[in-house]
Amino acid sequence: LRKHCKGDRMIITLLSDFQDFYPASMKGVILRINPDAKIIDISHNIPKHNVFAGAFVLMTTVKYFPSRSVHIAVVDPGVGTERRGIGIMSHSKSLGFHVFIGPDNGLLIPASKSIGEFEVYELTNKNLFQKNVSDSFHGRDIFASVGAYISTGISLSDVGRQIFDYVKLDFGKAKITENLIIGKVIFIDSFGNIITNIKLENVKIGKTYEIDGKKLVFQKSYGFCDKGEPLILIGSHGYLEIAVNNGNASEFFNKKQGDDIVLNFV
Amino acid sequence: LRKHCKGDRMIITLLSDFQDFYPASMKGVILRINPDAKIIDISHNIPKHNVFAGAFVLMTTVKYFPSRSVHIAVVDPGVGTERRGIGIMSHSKSLGFHVFIGPDNGLLIPASKSIGEFEVYELTNKNLFQKNVSDSFHGRDIFASVGAYISTGISLSDVGRQIFDYVKLDFGKAKITENLIIGKVIFIDSFGNIITNIKLENVKIGKTYEIDGKKLVFQKSYGFCDKGEPLILIGSHGYLEIAVNNGNASEFFNKKQGDDIVLNFV
Amino acid sequence: LRKHCKGDRMIITLLSDFQDFYPASMKGVILRINPDAKIIDISHNIPKHNVFAGAFVLMTTVKYFPSRSVHIAVVDPGVGTERRGIGIMSHSKSLGFHVFIGPDNGLLIPASKSIGEFEVYELTNKNLFQKNVSDSFHGRDIFASVGAYISTGISLSDVGRQIFDYVKLDFGKAKITENLIIGKVIFIDSFGNIITNIKLENVKIGKTYEIDGKKLVFQKSYGFCDKGEPLILIGSHGYLEIAVNNGNASEFFNKKQGDDIVLNFV
Repeated sequence: LRKHCKGDRMIITLLSDFQDFYPASMKGVILRINPDAKIIDISHNIPKHNVFAGAFVLMTTVKYFPSRSVHIAVVDPGVGTERRGIGIMSHSKSLGFHVFIGPDNGLLIPASKSIGEFEVYELTNKNLFQKNVSDSFHGRDIFASVGAYISTGISLSDVGRQIFDYVKLDFGKAKITENLIIGKVIFIDSFGNIITNIKLENVKIGKTYEIDGKKLVFQKSYGFCDKGEPLILIGSHGYLEIAVNNGNASEFFNKKQGDDIVLNFV
Repeated sequence: LRKHCKGDRMIITLLSDFQDFYPASMKGVILRINPDAKIIDISHNIPKHNVFAGAFVLMTTVKYFPSRSVHIAVVDPGVGTERRGIGIMSHSKSLGFHVFIGPDNGLLIPASKSIGEFEVYELTNKNLFQKNVSDSFHGRDIFASVGAYISTGISLSDVGRQIFDYVKLDFGKAKITENLIIGKVIFIDSFGNIITNIKLENVKIGKTYEIDGKKLVFQKSYGFCDKGEPLILIGSHGYLEIAVNNGNASEFFNKKQGDDIVLNFV
Repeated sequence: LRKHCKGDRMIITLLSDFQDFYPASMKGVILRINPDAKIIDISHNIPKHNVFAGAFVLMTTVKYFPSRSVHIAVVDPGVGTERRGIGIMSHSKSLGFHVFIGPDNGLLIPASKSIGEFEVYELTNKNLFQKNVSDSFHGRDIFASVGAYISTGISLSDVGRQIFDYVKLDFGKAKITENLIIGKVIFIDSFGNIITNIKLENVKIGKTYEIDGKKLVFQKSYGFCDKGEPLILIGSHGYLEIAVNNGNASEFFNKKQGDDIVLNFV
């Protein structure tokens, strides 16, 4: 794996809960190290301090990027404390090589797993950090800096030693019985669509379900319902999604991230 | 026209109502097809499902981009239904060649018209789509994919057959009589400025008008009024705009998109 | 200084209070003049008309960008009036050469000062403007246009004559006595962190202070407190910052930009 870490990775993606101007400092740091980097924002609007939501967004997005991309992700309530910084090299035949840089709090794990097999390294080589590391903005002073060096061809094994006790994070598995499915809300998107941790292989379009006494039908997409009508679909991320055509399912069903979802077969 | 479709179009603009992380997947898809593409976001904050607002923003923006730009726009409540995907080549001597990719719901029409003469093609060539087209995210699986191929030099006539029964959309025309002007609000921008469908050729700076009994003066720009005072100006987009200096005209006049605007001469 | 103005500056940063789609027109104008420009958004979410906030964000960000960057900043309530447009060349050995383009209302001054010694020029050379300058969007028709030309190697002295009576702006200085520190809130970031104009050289980690009767401890970073607990730290921008771990200090202490901050030693 390691020999593939070298080379000209030019695409650097950024994800954070910084919302506004802090990512620009990260971009400045990156461009001073690698003026040819192509920087793409995944999102800077992750709900504040919400590692779980950040992990979901990162996971559903990175697989669309070319092999050799470097993904820097920062949702980091523990910045400046003992929590470690990590770099991950993940790889599969179909999706290629992807590097992830960020805090050791689980944020990077579902995305790394979604790409393929992965190795985790602790970020300890201070030559790859900025000179004066602040205690409150490792996104700029450590993660952007290390990620930019990786994009110039530095091997991930040069950032520090490999570790195995990194913090894990997953989205759990839904229970599917004969009469019902019990899952969890893993994300609410900006449309108010409820994204669950339910994966269904064989879906019957047109089948009716019930959530909290409200009926809704499995459809291919939003526009197959009347306006304001709820539906279930397999979302573009591959998870079961609950939506309201031209409306907001999160409000309609009064569900937020972490809530249980019980789908009754009707 | 068609022979001009070939060549290295490198600038790809994106417009949507996705607000947050969905555009990043589109960018990944684009960069896997054309690693040299220069991607520019026009806006991802179009009011949800508001094709009319998206059409206005696209129209006022694309003419500033260089010839040979590809504009991918997705406000698409009908995704996954029978609504078609279309590609448009538009051209004029002064503004050059622009390609538009998106849903056949009117979104692309005012922008295409603003550039010049245009031809519309249906997107049917599945070789230019992603392998697994989801039913709920054609922005990623069809429009970004086709737009990226176009930017590498694929001719628009290779996406499918030319069509003439595409969905139309326009902003209407204001009525101008001796004593009043009756128009419509076509957009409220983030400053709260009211952008109307009124086009005035000969404007008298300093002339006073009245809206709903409130007096306001035609000015060159915002700063010619006192703070909190309303004014009329020709906005940067060329339409008559109603503003409040350092304030919010949409709240001041209680107007939203689609509302009538009646300007009385005083 | 002037001879250094020439050359291929390729990075152009943008800052504004435009929030949504207006910056895209600026990018189109830039790319028509310099197709190789690398455009980086610093922020377009500066509070509307808030020159002071824009000046702070610009100042804390530009020093991370490479030498020869061009920074175009537009928070411009006086657009279209007699207020001048200016270009500034600033330079220091450690941070290199930076050009600033924007309105003469103080917005560019703290950032220019933060880089090093600077010279101010009035933008009067209409050959560098767009052909039809609107009265309400100089960001697009003048500032983006001039900035793009500068990035292609046009010397700053070609934009107009040097001036010395430009509008000044600074963030004031905190008073530090034996028993208390009196400063001002210069910015509230999206986390609700209160950024003050207080600069402290010798900080004792663990020391307790009091604001409006509420105790809080000086810490290295957020995660050293319990959730919901307030703290003082030296923020990543170098200023004294008041925060709440996993919370919103602006709400906790009921402070907004411009308010006084009185820190009592306990």
